[in-house]
Amino acid sequence: LLCDGYARAENPYQAHLLKVLRDRGSLSRAAMSETIGLSRTKVSVELDRLAQLRLINSGGLAPSLGGRRPAIVGTDPDVRFVGVDIGATSVDVAVTDGELRLLGRLSDSINVRQEPDMLSQELGCPVMVDNDVNIMALGEMHAGTARSVEDFLFIKLGTSIGCGIVLQGQLHRGPSGSAGDIGHLQVENLGPACACGNVGCLEAFFSGAALERDALQAARSGQSPALADRLESTGFLTAVDVGVAASSGDPVAVALVRDGARRLGQVIAALVSFINPALVVIGGGVANLGHSLLAEVRSVVYQRSLPLATGNLPIVLSGLPTQGGVIGGARLISDAVLCAPRSAAP
Amino acid sequence: LLCDGYARAENPYQAHLLKVLRDRGSLSRAAMSETIGLSRTKVSVELDRLAQLRLINSGGLAPSLGGRRPAIVGTDPDVRFVGVDIGATSVDVAVTDGELRLLGRLSDSINVRQEPDMLSQELGCPVMVDNDVNIMALGEMHAGTARSVEDFLFIKLGTSIGCGIVLQGQLHRGPSGSAGDIGHLQVENLGPACACGNVGCLEAFFSGAALERDALQAARSGQSPALADRLESTGFLTAVDVGVAASSGDPVAVALVRDGARRLGQVIAALVSFINPALVVIGGGVANLGHSLLAEVRSVVYQRSLPLATGNLPIVLSGLPTQGGVIGGARLISDAVLCAPRSAAP
Repeated sequence: LLCDGYARAENPYQAHLLKVLRDRGSLSRAAMSETIGLSRTKVSVELDRLAQLRLINSGGLAPSLGGRRPAIVGTDPDVRFVGVDIGATSVDVAVTDGELRLLGRLSDSINVRQEPDMLSQELGCPVMVDNDVNIMALGEMHAGTARSVEDFLFIKLGTSIGCGIVLQGQLHRGPSGSAGDIGHLQVENLGPACACGNVGCLEAFFSGAALERDALQAARSGQSPALADRLESTGFLTAVDVGVAASSGDPVAVALVRDGARRLGQVIAALVSFINPALVVIGGGVANLGHSLLAEVRSVVYQRSLPLATGNLPIVLSGLPTQGGVIGGARLISDAVLCAPRSAAP
Repeated sequence: LLCDGYARAENPYQAHLLKVLRDRGSLSRAAMSETIGLSRTKVSVELDRLAQLRLINSGGLAPSLGGRRPAIVGTDPDVRFVGVDIGATSVDVAVTDGELRLLGRLSDSINVRQEPDMLSQELGCPVMVDNDVNIMALGEMHAGTARSVEDFLFIKLGTSIGCGIVLQGQLHRGPSGSAGDIGHLQVENLGPACACGNVGCLEAFFSGAALERDALQAARSGQSPALADRLESTGFLTAVDVGVAASSGDPVAVALVRDGARRLGQVIAALVSFINPALVVIGGGVANLGHSLLAEVRSVVYQRSLPLATGNLPIVLSGLPTQGGVIGGARLISDAVLCAPRSAAP
């Protein structure tokens, strides 16, 4: 559909039906009627029109439960969404089907500062742009641990630090679109200078860039033999090297992970008290530091937040470390395309 | 209506019409039809039914604009809502009309710990209960500065400290109802012991209770002659006394207000970066400390939050210092009563 034009829902009923099929997979007409609270007659009229538009396929059969196999409806196998996740240093592109299952993907390195508007050129199909943290949060909502909750925070630890905020199943962006900008929350009165001009920012202590700076310093000063060896063999150090050195017991690397995780935990504790989420998911490249990161964060949050907010609060690492962004990008554009034009409201 | 039973909307259209009249006041049938996007015929059918139920009055006439005076519809003059604001030490009760305008109010002192369930007894009408911060936020939304925005934070400085969070016009409570619990966010690594068992909590530094503690200490130690005089004449000290002493230039009182406001500002700066509100309103008894409080808070927030989040961000004192809670309580129950039962959905 991408190549020879695209179809979209003509009214809110069709939009709702398509979203149900995207999120729940194939269903019988009876189940769809029940889910969206419309009569079976009305549902059938809209489904027949969607089949004409080649947005759904109504010829499927569910597995037999003993008798006749019930007819089911699903998204058309030719429906495609494309999700693109542009990081500071790389771009991921993925193609999905109508249920946002990955069909194929490509990754390449780019310098985002040199070609920021590369993808905004005419593509001949609808395009949406959002920041990386928000699309990763949408990916968690669609296909990750957050699928089962309405309110959650997605913390991205990467080159920078940010938070995706999902409340009542909706991404909260704020009036100027800057919601979730937690990288510059102050965690110490003093500390390394931050790119924003302040000192004491979380990001100046614990982003990928901050870890690389501290790891280089520890390697060059001889404080960390493990990091010095790694630097000598590869010529550079990343957050992954800090994680490997910490796992091997290097005391400086262990302290870098623990101190950073403690500061991150302080921030998450405040966010949890403030917004009372049902789940916190931590993702992004620096989340690869692994379970000592998670243990320290949990310890601080469970100690600093009130029991009412943490009683049932899981804090987990993302189960979609490399796919969350592109699935979320596909979710974003599918929401926009499946949304009926306002003028067609009943 | 409170005395001889109560009527409520029978379907979502009626609920919507009643909420429009509550929030915008009397309107012509044409304006109502346009506002809710229903045909004038359908609007008239529902308005006639609401008049039968004695929920609206359709006999009014708008002022002449030169020709015939247009007929307008408004909430019935006999419609009543009751808002109750229970604090730690006092209870306020107010009766409003259908547009939530105050018709009368009563205040009395109570000890909330002794009679927490006093109002939950059978009253013969629908009752809703929420915490004081949330109903004060609803009051700001209905009748205060926040009327014009969709996303705002209401910070209550009283015996304790809390935050009401309104996003997209809806109060955000969180899955366990503890959202906005900012009194125990950590603002210092060390500090006075807090009732919650931690140290360094905002509330242990700057609640009404904390200010009273510090004011007594300053009066008894002789550090503050102004507070010592006040203590001798009245036998006790409150946040108001600290405000008066600060206004008169007493250095200890000035420092108490400035230090407390700085810590409050740090917390608000983090919340602003995180949630990107369009407005911050500060209310509650301790907000009476006045404009030096506001100046210090603004200074910290504008310095610590990113320009994108603070560019258009007003930080103001509540314009409803004594009415916000009861108006918000009336708003809460009116929302519940005006909401049609789910089974009547079209």
